Amino acid sequence: MPITANNPNRQTWIATSSKTDFPIQNIPFGVFLTRDDIITIGTRIGDTAIDLGALHQLGYFEGIPLTDDIFLQDSLNDFISDGKKTWRLVRNRIAEIFDKENKALQNNEEHKKIVLFKLEEIEMQLPVTVGDYTDFYSSKEHATNVGTMFRDPDNALLPNWLHMPVGYHGRSSSIIPSGIPVHRPQGQKIIDGADSPIFGPSRLVDFELEMAFITTDANPLGEPIPVDEAEDYIFGLVLFNDWSARDIQKWEYVPLGPFLGKSFASSISPWIITLDALEPFRVAGPKPEKEQLPYLQTEGERSFDIHLEVAIQPEKGKPVKVCKSNFKYMYWNMSQQLAHHTINGCPVNSGDMMGSGTISGPTPDSYGSMLELSWKGKNPVQLSDGENRKFIEDNDTVIMTGYCKNKDVRIGFGEVSTKLLPVFKK
Amino acid sequence: MPITANNPNRQTWIATSSKTDFPIQNIPFGVFLTRDDIITIGTRIGDTAIDLGALHQLGYFEGIPLTDDIFLQDSLNDFISDGKKTWRLVRNRIAEIFDKENKALQNNEEHKKIVLFKLEEIEMQLPVTVGDYTDFYSSKEHATNVGTMFRDPDNALLPNWLHMPVGYHGRSSSIIPSGIPVHRPQGQKIIDGADSPIFGPSRLVDFELEMAFITTDANPLGEPIPVDEAEDYIFGLVLFNDWSARDIQKWEYVPLGPFLGKSFASSISPWIITLDALEPFRVAGPKPEKEQLPYLQTEGERSFDIHLEVAIQPEKGKPVKVCKSNFKYMYWNMSQQLAHHTINGCPVNSGDMMGSGTISGPTPDSYGSMLELSWKGKNPVQLSDGENRKFIEDNDTVIMTGYCKNKDVRIGFGEVSTKLLPVFKK
Repeated sequence: MPITANNPNRQTWIATSSKTDFPIQNIPFGVFLTRDDIITIGTRIGDTAIDLGALHQLGYFEGIPLTDDIFLQDSLNDFISDGKKTWRLVRNRIAEIFDKENKALQNNEEHKKIVLFKLEEIEMQLPVTVGDYTDFYSSKEHATNVGTMFRDPDNALLPNWLHMPVGYHGRSSSIIPSGIPVHRPQGQKIIDGADSPIFGPSRLVDFELEMAFITTDANPLGEPIPVDEAEDYIFGLVLFNDWSARDIQKWEYVPLGPFLGKSFASSISPWIITLDALEPFRVAGPKPEKEQLPYLQTEGERSFDIHLEVAIQPEKGKPVKVCKSNFKYMYWNMSQQLAHHTINGCPVNSGDMMGSGTISGPTPDSYGSMLELSWKGKNPVQLSDGENRKFIEDNDTVIMTGYCKNKDVRIGFGEVSTKLLPVFKK
Repeated sequence: MPITANNPNRQTWIATSSKTDFPIQNIPFGVFLTRDDIITIGTRIGDTAIDLGALHQLGYFEGIPLTDDIFLQDSLNDFISDGKKTWRLVRNRIAEIFDKENKALQNNEEHKKIVLFKLEEIEMQLPVTVGDYTDFYSSKEHATNVGTMFRDPDNALLPNWLHMPVGYHGRSSSIIPSGIPVHRPQGQKIIDGADSPIFGPSRLVDFELEMAFITTDANPLGEPIPVDEAEDYIFGLVLFNDWSARDIQKWEYVPLGPFLGKSFASSISPWIITLDALEPFRVAGPKPEKEQLPYLQTEGERSFDIHLEVAIQPEKGKPVKVCKSNFKYMYWNMSQQLAHHTINGCPVNSGDMMGSGTISGPTPDSYGSMLELSWKGKNPVQLSDGENRKFIEDNDTVIMTGYCKNKDVRIGFGEVSTKLLPVFKK
């Protein structure tokens, strides 16, 4: 089925700026509270939010096999379970409904009052109920930087790294949408050379610039997903800030991996950009440096050219860009991650989220964490008005943005913006 | 509110053997498919399963604040969300309904036909939808054995181990109830001294004898649970077999912890035994060997005397007991685990599952995994009829059982029984 929603020549009757992340070629999916405090599934064109639950009730999805309440839910999980064919039918239909040439809704003032919202009237929610969240570690530059800092510059990559997309299970319960603030976590930390840990607030709170993809129901227990089929099970992507407390993490992570140093919060951008919308931005990833086992070998362009940026906004200042990276730097692509994740028969379900790992690029201004940008705090990062940062301070807001752009169209992710509050006090 | 359901003198009108794990003092909770293929929440006395959905519809829970459909669900999550007071009211009421002196249901043949099932007529399901699953590593004997085998016998415990209940995030999607078979997983393995991994079936498939506790909604993002309140958020426990592929785990686990070596399956016993039912079996845990930080300090008896056993049944043989351990050996108790898990503000929800980690005792016959029992395969474990095992073979069934016993009553967990099938073939 052609992805007619991607037609770059299509114009919409909804007012949009040429710089918007959400032209009619995007058509993301999200969940929001409306001005009437009703939860619904929606999409967005420009700065207009569109209630898909209401559109469906008004008959605009006639002919597409959808249950009556598919968009009247507090998560996209059931819609995602419907599968790629249905996602495509719905996205193509939305493009038609809002096409400049289509007068049906455009000229129906009553329907428009029910269906359309200004962004100020809605409150974005988590788009999915995340069953399981996995975080990969797939940027070679990031893994090399960390290995150089903490282990051995001459053997920065661990032996398994070039052979598999290393990953670990993360905590789903602390995944939050953009806009929800996070308290500085407390925990155990060890001072270099000490025998026993001390307890207190983390002093090394960091962001990690990541993206995450969201899956549909993919496989029953025991059956791997072949790498060539993996993309069929990917609904779309969001920006992902994997908050990290480096001091807590350092003391706890041997031998079972990161735990409380990560599980206090992970923030995501609320609109899921479909893999279909990213189709025009496919690129090849880095060439494998070692021969990969057959179950991980992919052909063709399996990566995406997504520009990523991080800004820090101090409490009384303006946001300052501290990092500029790109999703295409990932050494392991999403198909390889999903094939690896299931090679042992582990089931993947609708709403599962898979983080990329910190996306660092080749140059120092493209490093995706303060740990790397300040090189463990040695080189503080300059902000505006004379302030600088080694790590994130109380009341700083971390803002991540992402977009794709070619001569025809810009497809963006919006932002994930999260304020770090001081330690929680009862 | 007194836990009258625990009255050891109470007798029931349901036929029970004196050896049953499920006397009227137990009253566990589970989810099952009935003979009419309807899913319901239920309990069990002796070998009789009881449909709580039907009991509620017939009015037997009158006076207890419960929604009409609370037991007509495919998981216990909503009931668990109702909180400890409600669990206790329901459990006490069930004890009354089935008390020998109570004729209401006992003499109502029509109601009994609707409410009671033979075990052969039902099919046990997962009792909860597991949002997040965490696995701890809280047996000192197990951590010491593993450290001795793989690192340094003189420094077997890592520096953090005596200071915190070390844990990691696990995979929820592959948690399965007793009776569901598991395929031997495939994956990457490294041969000692080799540069590159090979791909194939795991040759070192192992069980881990664990228990897991199930929580209710405990805390919002950012707010820790004080260690003294932690038990209020624990609904109950199950037996937990944390299947492990030692060769896959060995190659993958540095630096981010176990991943595919664990996520192919974890099996649980289907009846949740409430913390209330275990009340008579409280014991003190091991004395702390190092001073613990205040947020982890507990007073009184926070552990439970639960006898645990593992048997292996070869395809054409009888089950042979290979391990006898006890939950009370755990160095870190559940209150400490939950306080630690949330000290950074990580939210804990209804249906979350927390594994204890392998429960090994002080003697070699109490080790909770084949890795330890066979000491990395050096000392094969004898089974019946001349067979022996270093690890688990295709078509072996691993059976874990657990029970508490004092002079008055035996409260058991039933079993978690899982067959290991050969590698999956399409």
